[in-house]
Amino acid sequence: VKTFAMKRVTIVGEKALEPQLVKEMHDFGVTGYTSTVVHGGGAKGTRPSRWEGPNVKIEVIASPELAERILTHVAQNYFEKYAVIAFVDDVQVLRAEKFGG
Amino acid sequence: VKTFAMKRVTIVGEKALEPQLVKEMHDFGVTGYTSTVVHGGGAKGTRPSRWEGPNVKIEVIASPELAERILTHVAQNYFEKYAVIAFVDDVQVLRAEKFGG
Amino acid sequence: VKTFAMKRVTIVGEKALEPQLVKEMHDFGVTGYTSTVVHGGGAKGTRPSRWEGPNVKIEVIASPELAERILTHVAQNYFEKYAVIAFVDDVQVLRAEKFGG
Repeated sequence: VKTFAMKRVTIVGEKALEPQLVKEMHDFGVTGYTSTVVHGGGAKGTRPSRWEGPNVKIEVIASPELAERILTHVAQNYFEKYAVIAFVDDVQVLRAEKFGG
Repeated sequence: VKTFAMKRVTIVGEKALEPQLVKEMHDFGVTGYTSTVVHGGGAKGTRPSRWEGPNVKIEVIASPELAERILTHVAQNYFEKYAVIAFVDDVQVLRAEKFGG
Repeated sequence: VKTFAMKRVTIVGEKALEPQLVKEMHDFGVTGYTSTVVHGGGAKGTRPSRWEGPNVKIEVIASPELAERILTHVAQNYFEKYAVIAFVDDVQVLRAEKFGG
């Protein structure tokens, strides 16, 4: 079956950031995302008093160019103020047209 | 520690498809899966009136050959009728015998 | 945007193991994790009477060296007694300092 190389961008942060992040993904032209409620623990340096808490994990499939733009946006707008982490990995998707590919 | 190269197949679709998809994975001889309730948004072209909704994410670890068969099955049986997406990536697993490897 | 090569370790097991696994990740010096409640099915050989049940998926970002130590620990302490699976894949993270990198 034919697959297409894309990027999966994963953003994890506090639950309250979900609506804003989802809206921003939409505005970036992302054509699909999933958000999952997770229980998470952050770096000790970031939230010294708590190792655990409710978080949201947002996953998006995007072209390499769009993934780069999303990550740059997250770094510039969230990293200073929030205990947000972001990472990216490679996936092979079916139906690339679903992802703007 | 010794690891083995396998594929992780991820299928995301509406929640109602879960029992059917899980049964099919079982019939394919998949020896383990996880399904996660996620909040998802689909392509604008697919569900024009809704950007968000409840979805299920099913993840399966399989050999490359089995992954290929699963993806072909999903493409042939779901893509025309449902807003299902599917993708695959590489993982290194411990205890390959747990995954039919 | 600058990213750093790290490993994502994923451990899936019965829900009751979560507190212990999270504590162990903390003791290993892991600076962030997410745990997700998933519905899972295990290998037929492991739990013959049940294909499905509640599980927890713990995901950790770590350096290759730490990932190796975590996987060795899981293999030595969980595989004999529990239906735990573990695998690892490659991710590119922003803010490596959040992950001990």
